[in-house]
Amino acid sequence: MENLNSHQIMIFLLSLGILLGTARILGEIAQKLRQPDVLGEILAGVILGPTIFGRIAPGIYAAIFPAEGPNAVALDTISNIAIVLFLMVAGIEVDLSTMLRQGRLGLKVGISSIVVPFTIGFALTMAFPSLFNPSGSVSHLVFSSFVAVALAISALPVIAKILMDMDLYRSDLGMVVVSAAIFNDLVGWMLFAVLLGFSEKTGDSGSTVAMTLLLVLGFSGFMLTAGRALIHRMLPIIQAHSRWPGGELSFAIVLSILGASFTEWIGIHAIFGALLVGAAVGDSAHLRERTRFTIAHFVSFIFAPVFFAGIGLKVDFLSHFNPSLVVTVLLIGCFCKMAGGVLGAIWSGLPRREVWAVGFAMNSGGAMEIIIGLLALQAGIITHELFVALVIMAIVTSMISGPLMRMVLKPEKVWKLQDALSSKLFLRELQAVSRKEAIFELTEAACYQAGLPAGTVAASVWAREEAMSTGIGNGVALPHARIEGLKEPLVVMGVSDSGIDFDAPDDRLAHVLFLILTPLTDPGIQLTIASELARVFKKPHMLDRVMRVKNFTDFIAFLKSSAPV
Amino acid sequence: MENLNSHQIMIFLLSLGILLGTARILGEIAQKLRQPDVLGEILAGVILGPTIFGRIAPGIYAAIFPAEGPNAVALDTISNIAIVLFLMVAGIEVDLSTMLRQGRLGLKVGISSIVVPFTIGFALTMAFPSLFNPSGSVSHLVFSSFVAVALAISALPVIAKILMDMDLYRSDLGMVVVSAAIFNDLVGWMLFAVLLGFSEKTGDSGSTVAMTLLLVLGFSGFMLTAGRALIHRMLPIIQAHSRWPGGELSFAIVLSILGASFTEWIGIHAIFGALLVGAAVGDSAHLRERTRFTIAHFVSFIFAPVFFAGIGLKVDFLSHFNPSLVVTVLLIGCFCKMAGGVLGAIWSGLPRREVWAVGFAMNSGGAMEIIIGLLALQAGIITHELFVALVIMAIVTSMISGPLMRMVLKPEKVWKLQDALSSKLFLRELQAVSRKEAIFELTEAACYQAGLPAGTVAASVWAREEAMSTGIGNGVALPHARIEGLKEPLVVMGVSDSGIDFDAPDDRLAHVLFLILTPLTDPGIQLTIASELARVFKKPHMLDRVMRVKNFTDFIAFLKSSAPV
Repeated sequence: MENLNSHQIMIFLLSLGILLGTARILGEIAQKLRQPDVLGEILAGVILGPTIFGRIAPGIYAAIFPAEGPNAVALDTISNIAIVLFLMVAGIEVDLSTMLRQGRLGLKVGISSIVVPFTIGFALTMAFPSLFNPSGSVSHLVFSSFVAVALAISALPVIAKILMDMDLYRSDLGMVVVSAAIFNDLVGWMLFAVLLGFSEKTGDSGSTVAMTLLLVLGFSGFMLTAGRALIHRMLPIIQAHSRWPGGELSFAIVLSILGASFTEWIGIHAIFGALLVGAAVGDSAHLRERTRFTIAHFVSFIFAPVFFAGIGLKVDFLSHFNPSLVVTVLLIGCFCKMAGGVLGAIWSGLPRREVWAVGFAMNSGGAMEIIIGLLALQAGIITHELFVALVIMAIVTSMISGPLMRMVLKPEKVWKLQDALSSKLFLRELQAVSRKEAIFELTEAACYQAGLPAGTVAASVWAREEAMSTGIGNGVALPHARIEGLKEPLVVMGVSDSGIDFDAPDDRLAHVLFLILTPLTDPGIQLTIASELARVFKKPHMLDRVMRVKNFTDFIAFLKSSAPV
Repeated sequence: MENLNSHQIMIFLLSLGILLGTARILGEIAQKLRQPDVLGEILAGVILGPTIFGRIAPGIYAAIFPAEGPNAVALDTISNIAIVLFLMVAGIEVDLSTMLRQGRLGLKVGISSIVVPFTIGFALTMAFPSLFNPSGSVSHLVFSSFVAVALAISALPVIAKILMDMDLYRSDLGMVVVSAAIFNDLVGWMLFAVLLGFSEKTGDSGSTVAMTLLLVLGFSGFMLTAGRALIHRMLPIIQAHSRWPGGELSFAIVLSILGASFTEWIGIHAIFGALLVGAAVGDSAHLRERTRFTIAHFVSFIFAPVFFAGIGLKVDFLSHFNPSLVVTVLLIGCFCKMAGGVLGAIWSGLPRREVWAVGFAMNSGGAMEIIIGLLALQAGIITHELFVALVIMAIVTSMISGPLMRMVLKPEKVWKLQDALSSKLFLRELQAVSRKEAIFELTEAACYQAGLPAGTVAASVWAREEAMSTGIGNGVALPHARIEGLKEPLVVMGVSDSGIDFDAPDDRLAHVLFLILTPLTDPGIQLTIASELARVFKKPHMLDRVMRVKNFTDFIAFLKSSAPV
């Protein structure tokens, strides 16, 4: 077996350490500035790569990051495994069941977010052949299709991250956007995979494009139905016969690597297999939250930064910077994507300010666009200049998504917890021990107060809860539903000393529960209330203090005394 | 940058997936048979490598695991990063503070466990030059020293694992064995590193052996003092300025990789730097348990299996199997190591059955011996035949350690919880909210009952607790101490509804606390009680049921009804 010699090992570890360290530091700084990590990570590569470090100290640069030989292969190996695992995690984050259940609204936005940008992008590129600086090495039809896909794809991880930061990930709006992004990702990647099959000469398997297409659809279909069911059945068996979390951890990763190898063999990229296996694994309710987190943390904080910083090493961003192309891509890209999101949201009948929020959310290109661009660059479909422009578009759109969404979603009117509660809507000692019991207990109090039919109301809240749990972490859960015939929002607060499992992302039991019932006619107020509650309970020690409160009067007194001036 | 082409990526992912999958399945099977994982993992490599698969289907074997070219480099890259991270985890498991505090006893066993096998091994190899089949490519002095080190080194991870499986990791005996193994590992590795420096031609740095030695000692000294203090100071800063657990995760890994690169540059192997950095990082009380687990899980279940299975790929175990050499190595190895452990334990004045337990524990060679053997093989110090013999010795000693320890430590007399408790030693509602308060509350009850000075007793229990927390997981904590003048063991049970943080490995709060006070004169009884309590509370739902009990009578009734027949 060919081994790296001592000098090569030393250089490999040095380059890896520097790359990862720089990427993580700049990623954290980006995060502090409320920007996506990927921005800082790519910047690290640009600084360490040919663009800056390679210009300043070409000798040292070539010694640490050799362009050829075993060390280049070693770094590329890490990049390859990193991107496979990153896409697996993206797949795990895809919640197929949510998407299927959420159904209509998300699907409409998803379809629109693919069809609108794809159509505009394809038409523009076909009509103005030189607009995007084609490489000429592939047919213009393939090139135009690629540009169209690149303009259409969104970044589920970035979108999910922004929604989580805003405490909207598990809100109704959040669910629509996430389902749309899932649909967008899956279809976008499938289109891209087929495209890549068309553009490349016959692969190792010697399969024709039609064969590739058939295999892609067959494999996707299998993974999303029978494969998914099989994995769901196998997980408990693996958990029973192996040590936790080792069994499910290895199972998920081995399966993704083999899936990746298989799609690479089909003739499309490895990442597609990893994404599909990830989606199938992540969809199983048997996969434990903590395993998800172990994988997600290791991949997001170790592998992904290496991959994204590695991109900066591959391309000289200065010599391939074409200002007019960058501006063209940026303007057309933003227009296409936002149009897709906005039209989809209007088609779904969402209220006005949510329409814009969806448009801004679907606009972020993020990591997905960069990966697609890189693969297209390596396959010779696009030029270095267009790649640089795509990376810049991806970064800029990801940067502006969050702030713009925050702007349009800013609560229109101030809603105060102390004004909404009353002593009858404050249950200091919940008897419930399960999620369902808690929801019924809270609903009963609400319905008694408002004269609503407790049975139907509880059923809607429970249906919503089943679709996606409402534990927001920090010991707080916000079960909710929109109720027909209700005139004013109704909030019931319950405190549980023993805690109730609401499947929160931080694994903590919920001790403070708010049941939020809102009128069907005012879809925005639910977000307002949820954001306000999340804001109040974000304060440190808030939960401890609330749990020490003995009765309603104490609670209101405490709330008023701790409210911001 | 040199990239793997599509076919190479496909083969790389396929080989990695097969290697990891097989290694993990056989590792889990080994575990089921109460054997160390490493046994199954190496076996996976032997099956997939030249020994079996390469013999049966040489064509397919060569296609999946090519011996040369980019794919061989890619697998070797993964092996290299895997071993660096594995040694980092081994370093993190090393608890320097425990070792320093435990002091005298562990140190004596540790010194003996190095000196005795090293002396016997060195003398035998010098006296009978052909005993261990020397390769002849290095001086006989270097070869003899290497054999001596290989015979002396123990496997901290295997020892720790066995102790954890027996619920003895945090017992007094466990602490002695673990500190001894830590000392053994650090000194053994340092000896080996220096030896490697002697054996190799001048490295890249062109430093002489004296220079290497100086740098090794300097770096080790720095990492274990100033470096360690620096890391301890930096961790809270990193935690404050980054997202958890990303910041500390990346910090630990980047530092280890850079440390590994540095020691490789010095001229000794990368793993040494990773071990030292790991020890320094793991020693900081600021490193959160969950981060430790995320790293440990990912490394033990993903990276380590790939590395150990990779060993099987490198060597043909059949053609290099020399029965007489295997028997010689095995007999001399077991004798040397057990002698080291047993003599050390006698020197420390441990009771008889613990003397043998220490001997059996220190006998396990495990992963460390294999890694050292592999490096010696690659450096040309030893032959393939001796390497195969060393691997077999490592595996066999690791296999027999656990069962032998279990045999000698089997509780001599039956101790029953229900006979030891009384209503005055049962505190249904602990008032304490902190670990210290809880210990004082329990100690007070015990001392009132037994007429002991509460102040001094509480101080000893607290000192023991500070040395290493006694939360054993599953919501149970076992604070304990040996008390002068006490005639009979005394157990106080406390139940805390809100839970108290005893820093358990599973992060759960302790709800059931047992204070175990034992006579100075009967060191074994503490183990008996701790094992019995751990056994009782291992049953599922035990904790829930205990917490629902209202008073002492109910508890005893419940305990008797649920006792094994």
